[in-house]
Amino acid sequence: MTASGGDTQRGIRRRNLARVLRTVAAAGPLSRPAIAERIGLTRAGVAPLVEELLRAGLLVETGRAATGGRGRPGGELAVSDRGPAGLGAEIGVDHLAVCAVDLRGRVRARVAADAANRHSAPEPVLRRLSALLAEVTAGLAAEGLRPAGLTVAVPGLVARGSTTVVHAPHLGWRAADLAPGLAGATLAGHEAALPLTVENEAHLGALAELWLGAGEGPPLPPDFVHVSAETGIGAAVVVDGRLLRGARGFAGELGHVPVYPDGPVCDCGSRGCLEQYAGERAVLRAGGLAPDGAAEVPAGPGARIGLLARRAADGDAATLRALREAGAALGIALAGVVNLLDPRAVVLGGAMAGLAPWVVPSLERELTRRTAVAAADGPGGGPVVAVSRLGADGPLLGAAHATLRSVLDDPLHSRTPAHSPRNLAR
Amino acid sequence: MTASGGDTQRGIRRRNLARVLRTVAAAGPLSRPAIAERIGLTRAGVAPLVEELLRAGLLVETGRAATGGRGRPGGELAVSDRGPAGLGAEIGVDHLAVCAVDLRGRVRARVAADAANRHSAPEPVLRRLSALLAEVTAGLAAEGLRPAGLTVAVPGLVARGSTTVVHAPHLGWRAADLAPGLAGATLAGHEAALPLTVENEAHLGALAELWLGAGEGPPLPPDFVHVSAETGIGAAVVVDGRLLRGARGFAGELGHVPVYPDGPVCDCGSRGCLEQYAGERAVLRAGGLAPDGAAEVPAGPGARIGLLARRAADGDAATLRALREAGAALGIALAGVVNLLDPRAVVLGGAMAGLAPWVVPSLERELTRRTAVAAADGPGGGPVVAVSRLGADGPLLGAAHATLRSVLDDPLHSRTPAHSPRNLAR
Repeated sequence: MTASGGDTQRGIRRRNLARVLRTVAAAGPLSRPAIAERIGLTRAGVAPLVEELLRAGLLVETGRAATGGRGRPGGELAVSDRGPAGLGAEIGVDHLAVCAVDLRGRVRARVAADAANRHSAPEPVLRRLSALLAEVTAGLAAEGLRPAGLTVAVPGLVARGSTTVVHAPHLGWRAADLAPGLAGATLAGHEAALPLTVENEAHLGALAELWLGAGEGPPLPPDFVHVSAETGIGAAVVVDGRLLRGARGFAGELGHVPVYPDGPVCDCGSRGCLEQYAGERAVLRAGGLAPDGAAEVPAGPGARIGLLARRAADGDAATLRALREAGAALGIALAGVVNLLDPRAVVLGGAMAGLAPWVVPSLERELTRRTAVAAADGPGGGPVVAVSRLGADGPLLGAAHATLRSVLDDPLHSRTPAHSPRNLAR
Repeated sequence: MTASGGDTQRGIRRRNLARVLRTVAAAGPLSRPAIAERIGLTRAGVAPLVEELLRAGLLVETGRAATGGRGRPGGELAVSDRGPAGLGAEIGVDHLAVCAVDLRGRVRARVAADAANRHSAPEPVLRRLSALLAEVTAGLAAEGLRPAGLTVAVPGLVARGSTTVVHAPHLGWRAADLAPGLAGATLAGHEAALPLTVENEAHLGALAELWLGAGEGPPLPPDFVHVSAETGIGAAVVVDGRLLRGARGFAGELGHVPVYPDGPVCDCGSRGCLEQYAGERAVLRAGGLAPDGAAEVPAGPGARIGLLARRAADGDAATLRALREAGAALGIALAGVVNLLDPRAVVLGGAMAGLAPWVVPSLERELTRRTAVAAADGPGGGPVVAVSRLGADGPLLGAAHATLRSVLDDPLHSRTPAHSPRNLAR
C-alpha cells in the first residue's frame, strides 16, 4: 500500500477513496450509511467520496431507491461493470494469453493461443501478444470498458528497480526490455501509454492465491510458500501477507534448489536441481514420453498435463512412478524451505496442481519426515500442504488483478509514475 | 520499533527521548544544538528531553563547559557509563556465559564456564547460570550499573507468542519454561523481576551482526543470511533489516535442510541433513577425532574449534578434507537458500567462523555453481560470502545488546510488559 501516499491531505483523501471503492467492491451493493459504518467514517465524510466515485463512473447507484431519482442519498451503491478494467497477459513457453477483469473482479474477456516461444526472439512473441491484446481491448471497448494498465506474467526474473526488463532462460531471453515491443499495444487508442509492468509468473500466481485463492473455503494464512511447477519451477514466499522479492528481485528460483547434488546436469550448469526431477520435461521423460516433437506429446501445457493426468488415471506404471518421484523431489526441496522459513502452508499451484492426486502423497511423505524438528512441538505441527484452486490460471488472473488493484488503491489515478503492482504486496 | 508506541503524546515523547539517547550513544559527546540538528527538532524541543535524560542518569554533562557549572546549556552531553546495563546470557551445549554492556555498548563484565549441558535437565543448568548472573550483577553494582533486563541465548527454538519456553533438542529440552529457574537471578536485589527474554542463539547472532558486525568496514547490507554453525547449525534470514521468524517462530533450521537425501540418519529422524556433514560432531568424526569422551578432544566449543584449526593449519589431511566437505555441504544447502531468497550476503558466523580459511573455498565453489541463474544477469552477480567479525561471540553479545536496545528504545521504562527484543527487529 505504499502507492497510497503518506499523511498529506491528498494522501489521506486517496486512501479514503480507495477504502470506499474497495469496500463496495467487496461487499456491495451498500447504502452510504453502511459504507460509513464499515470504514469508520462519518456519513458526512463518506458522502463527498461517494460523489467523486460516482462522477468518475467507478460507482453506480443501484436498487430500488436509485430507480426513483438519481443520486438520492438513500440509494444503494455498487461498483460499475463499465469503466476501468484490469488487463493481464501471460507469456508462456508455448502459449500466450490475455485476460481482463472489471472493477467487480469478474473476468470479462479472455483469449489464449498456442505459441512456440521457446528460444524465439522477443519481437515476434510480442507482436503476437500485441495482436491478442488488440482483440481483447476492442471487445472491452464495445462493452464500455477501458484498460487501466497492463501486467504481463513471464516465466523469468525481473530485476528489482525495473518493471519491464526480463531474464527468462526458458525463453532464451537475457535482459530483454519488453516495453518497446508492447508500445503499440499499450498505446492503442489512448492518449498516453498504459502503465506496463512485467512480473514473474510465480509471483503473480502466489498473489492471485493470496487475493482470490480462498474462494469459499477458509482464507489462506498470510504465511505460505506457493509453488508453481510447469516448464520451470518457481516459488513465491509470502510472509505476513507480503511477497518476498529478494535483494535484487530474484527470489523464488525453487527449480534450481539442489535435490540430489550429484544428479543430472541442469541447463543452468549445476547438477541435480529440482527441475531435473519435477520439471514438466523431466516428468514427461521419466514417464516414457519424449518431451520434444514426439507424436504422442501434444503442444500446450494444459494438453501435456492433461495427457499425464489421463495416463496416471489409467494406471500407467511409468507415469505413476514419474509423478511419485517428482512429488518426492518437490518434498525434499520444500523440506529445506520449511526448515528455513517455517510457513503455515505450502500451496501447490500452476499446471502441476492438476496432477496433485499423484504428486502430493510422496511430496507430503518427504516433507513430513524431513521437518520433524520444527514440527515436534509446534501447535498443530508442520505446515499444511494445499492444492491451488486456481491452478494454471493463477499467473494470468494474478496479472489482471494486479492491474485492477492499482485502480482500487488509487481510484482517481492520482498515482505517481512509480505505481506498479510491485507495491501492492509490500 | 513497535515498542515505542503509536502517535499518542506519550508515544511521541517516548520516541523523542529514544532518538536523543540513541543519537548521543552513537555520536556523542554532543552539544544540545548538535543533538537538535541531528534529530531535526528545535533547540527548545530538545532541552526538556535532555533534562529528563540527565535527571534519569542516562546522560551526563561532559567536556570543558560542564566543568565550569552543572547543567550549563553550552555543555556537551554523553551517555552515562553508569546506570542501566544490558545483561545477556548464553546457554550452550557445553558452556555457559554471561555478559553485560553499558549504555555506550562497551562490555563491562563477562564470565564463562564449561558445563556439560547436553541432556541435562533445565534446573541444574539454570542454577549454575543463576550463580554466574549473581557474580556479574554484584560486580556491576560495584561500578554503579544495574541490569535493565536479561536476554538468554539458547541453542533451540522459542515459540512465537512465548518469550521463555524453549524447545532445544541438543539439550534434550522440550517445552521447557526457563522463567521459574531464573526467577532468583532476575529478582536478586530488585523490587520487581527483570524482564526476561529467551531467544534462539542464531537469531541473536544475526542481530549482533546487523547491529555490531560492520565494525570499521562497510556496513552489512540489510538483506543477508547469517549461518551459525556449532553443535547445531542455525540460520537467520534478515530481509530489509528485519529478522524473519517464521509463522510459529521456528524459522532458521538450516541444520535440517536435506543435502544428500539418502545420506546418514540424523537425530531428527531424517536423512542427509546438513548437520550430518557440517555440524561440529560430524566434522570431528570425519577428521578422525571421536567427538565424545576421547582424550584428544577437549571440552568447550572454542577448544574443539581451536583443535580443528590447529590441525588444519598443520596440514593434517583428514582435518582438511573434513572441513572441505563441511564447506561443500554448507555451499549446497546455502545454494538452495540463495535461489529461494536472493540475499545480498551470506555471513558465516558462530564458532565455525574460526575455521573460515578451510571452509569458505569449497562453500563458495558449490554456492557459485549452483546459483548461476540468479547470478547471471544481476548487477554484481550472486551474493557475497562474508565471515563474521564476531564469530562465536555473536549470540552472547547479541543477547546483551538486545537488552540494551530495549533501554535505548524506551529510556524511561514506560514500556509495556510486552517489551522484548523480539520487537527490535521488526
